[in-house]
Amino acid sequence: MAVRLDANDADFENAFSAFLTTKREAAADVAAQVAEIIADVRERGDAALADHTTRFDGLDLAKVGMRVAPEEIDSAFDTLDDAVVDALKLAARRIESHHARQRPEDDSYTDDLGVRLGHRWTAIEAVGLYVPGGTAAYPSSVLMNALPARVAGVERIVMVVPARAGNLNPVVLAAARIAGVDEIYRVGGAQAVAALAYGTPTIAPVAKIVGPGNAYVAAAKRQVFGTVGIDMIAGPSEVLVVADGENDPDWVAADLLAQAEHDAAAQSVLITDDADFAHAVERAVERQLETLDRAATASASWRDFGAVITVADFDTAMALANRFAPEHLELAVAEPDALVAKVRNAGAVFIGRHTPEAVGDYVGGSNHVLPTARSARFSSGLGVLDYMKRTSLLRLDADALRALGPAAMTLAEAEGLDAHARSIGVRLNL
Amino acid sequence: MAVRLDANDADFENAFSAFLTTKREAAADVAAQVAEIIADVRERGDAALADHTTRFDGLDLAKVGMRVAPEEIDSAFDTLDDAVVDALKLAARRIESHHARQRPEDDSYTDDLGVRLGHRWTAIEAVGLYVPGGTAAYPSSVLMNALPARVAGVERIVMVVPARAGNLNPVVLAAARIAGVDEIYRVGGAQAVAALAYGTPTIAPVAKIVGPGNAYVAAAKRQVFGTVGIDMIAGPSEVLVVADGENDPDWVAADLLAQAEHDAAAQSVLITDDADFAHAVERAVERQLETLDRAATASASWRDFGAVITVADFDTAMALANRFAPEHLELAVAEPDALVAKVRNAGAVFIGRHTPEAVGDYVGGSNHVLPTARSARFSSGLGVLDYMKRTSLLRLDADALRALGPAAMTLAEAEGLDAHARSIGVRLNL
Repeated sequence: MAVRLDANDADFENAFSAFLTTKREAAADVAAQVAEIIADVRERGDAALADHTTRFDGLDLAKVGMRVAPEEIDSAFDTLDDAVVDALKLAARRIESHHARQRPEDDSYTDDLGVRLGHRWTAIEAVGLYVPGGTAAYPSSVLMNALPARVAGVERIVMVVPARAGNLNPVVLAAARIAGVDEIYRVGGAQAVAALAYGTPTIAPVAKIVGPGNAYVAAAKRQVFGTVGIDMIAGPSEVLVVADGENDPDWVAADLLAQAEHDAAAQSVLITDDADFAHAVERAVERQLETLDRAATASASWRDFGAVITVADFDTAMALANRFAPEHLELAVAEPDALVAKVRNAGAVFIGRHTPEAVGDYVGGSNHVLPTARSARFSSGLGVLDYMKRTSLLRLDADALRALGPAAMTLAEAEGLDAHARSIGVRLNL
Repeated sequence: MAVRLDANDADFENAFSAFLTTKREAAADVAAQVAEIIADVRERGDAALADHTTRFDGLDLAKVGMRVAPEEIDSAFDTLDDAVVDALKLAARRIESHHARQRPEDDSYTDDLGVRLGHRWTAIEAVGLYVPGGTAAYPSSVLMNALPARVAGVERIVMVVPARAGNLNPVVLAAARIAGVDEIYRVGGAQAVAALAYGTPTIAPVAKIVGPGNAYVAAAKRQVFGTVGIDMIAGPSEVLVVADGENDPDWVAADLLAQAEHDAAAQSVLITDDADFAHAVERAVERQLETLDRAATASASWRDFGAVITVADFDTAMALANRFAPEHLELAVAEPDALVAKVRNAGAVFIGRHTPEAVGDYVGGSNHVLPTARSARFSSGLGVLDYMKRTSLLRLDADALRALGPAAMTLAEAEGLDAHARSIGVRLNL
């Protein structure tokens, strides 16, 4: 049973503040072990990869090969329903066309002093995509991570995925093929991250590593950060639903449970102005839990981290939502656009009664890799810009340097950097 | 004396690879001490700030006050030459107008299924700017960090700066005022970073912390990352100059030394197709070092990390430059635009013989906070986007959900997430 808060209660502010800072995950401290694995891969390369893969995944890479063969990817399609392949293709098309709109523009202009300024965007040359093994392998995440990289123009996209007991999820392989990823290695864990960052004879290094993983993978990404770029370190997922009393309680309950089924540390929150509706949703959650495959996970999440908050009005609801800064924000109200305008901190907004968050997980077209744990206050979901970098351009001619140089020299001298000043002065005979 | 490499030598590839991976800085391991300071500030707030400020900066905050008074900022201007104030204002105007062009655009469109998609950019609500104390206090960095935040629309910009022995650099205070920053606290180190991240009764928390600092500051930023956003962890500065033999050796030598004077761990590299010119630059460096205020620093940098590389042609030069991925790239050649087109990895490019890097440090208009240590392979200089975040928007109506929902349900079921499927099915009576 989720916690129940009323924004009109005298102690609400304390309760909500405590709720905001609740830690939902205790990070396992595997930093030292991960540091050893990384050092080993740097020193021994493929041999270290093979040893750690035997140890963690029970897999002999010498037998099956590190790289997944094209025929293996082909044959993955044989085991899949046409409906699944079609759905993957539909999702890929929609993700690709949505992300194509995010391609940034170069800039070049000359100002009134004759200084030419601008910037140019270029794709990162090589990117590594970590895909978890086993039940955490989400083919949709392969599409969501790989397709923006393709749209950005990344030339080389490398996928690593652990194959515990030798098995790879055929839907994951199909998603990789559909996303145009064909360099796939059956390695995982910190050892795979180390190989991507530093390279081995078999796996050439990349410049950035993205994708979710367990505590070992997260620790390894933190440790190689700087040598390569990394994406966010994702926490457990969350949804905040702002709903009026006119919703079908079963629809909203289903949305709360869709989040809760991800992980016992996931979080589902309902904010509504209608206490009767709140009760109805709570009852619907309990009822739906009875017939859910992942009921154990979902009920633990709802019990430990779920919340139902009643408010007097939607201004209050949106103020609380902005403080919560949810990964996913649903606005299930009669006039949602008025609330959209008030959103300040959220990874993604799902607008209106017919936009369950789950549609955005798969086929909406927007990205499902979004900032968790209140990081929507300062960061964005994954997109094309995460696979590009901007180089700034500056060009002065002799006249422009004469116009601007003396001010630069003044500031250089104020900072005690006389070689800076001289590099301008020597050109101006000053 | 810098290292000398020739790209035509048989062992060049090995030598250049080793050169690329040379570590220029041994990071002091202060993580444990920093963790204690952060925990103390979280627990004791302002009292902890006062204690650590006494200990590290020899300053009694109870006497002077934590917040810098407006009159103190006003009186900073009294001690400055008009030329310095004018130069700061010129720099600020140019930085502001350049960065205004980086403001991103929102997007909203409806696709052929009637799905409304888009995104909205919003400014981060509050940002903390760390400014180092003492000789590392660069007023130009205050402008470069604060002005893009203002352009982005950040409502609250907080500056922290340690005041060792009570003194604040008046040029830094003037730069802050000119950049519109008036919430300034005389605290520094890990304790200041902790205060910005978690808040104290005096300093309200921010959502992102930017700005350079020493090992304590860098470690603190790493540790609070996640609770707040951070910018890059900057390493020592570097320049790579690609020059033909038609340059004045003194100009190029001055540019190499301008970089070298920053820090003994800074790095200056010349790539040229003209061996005689290379020698002439080397001689000019030695000659200029004799009359440089910061000769000790600059000569250590040039001796330990400087390099002169001769190549057969500029295609080779650009290939090496892209592997090096310099923070600053100067193209001092007759036809620089042809080389600009080949730039793939660089923080900023300074084009032509009349664009010494130092002009970009101050008054060019582009940002001088740029990716160091080869991170230009995967990241960009500081800009307006670093102070904003993108919220994605998705809206389906009943028809669009009927069109897309079944494919999403198929994928949810393939991933074993039946509550996801149900949240769509319940709306479609499936």
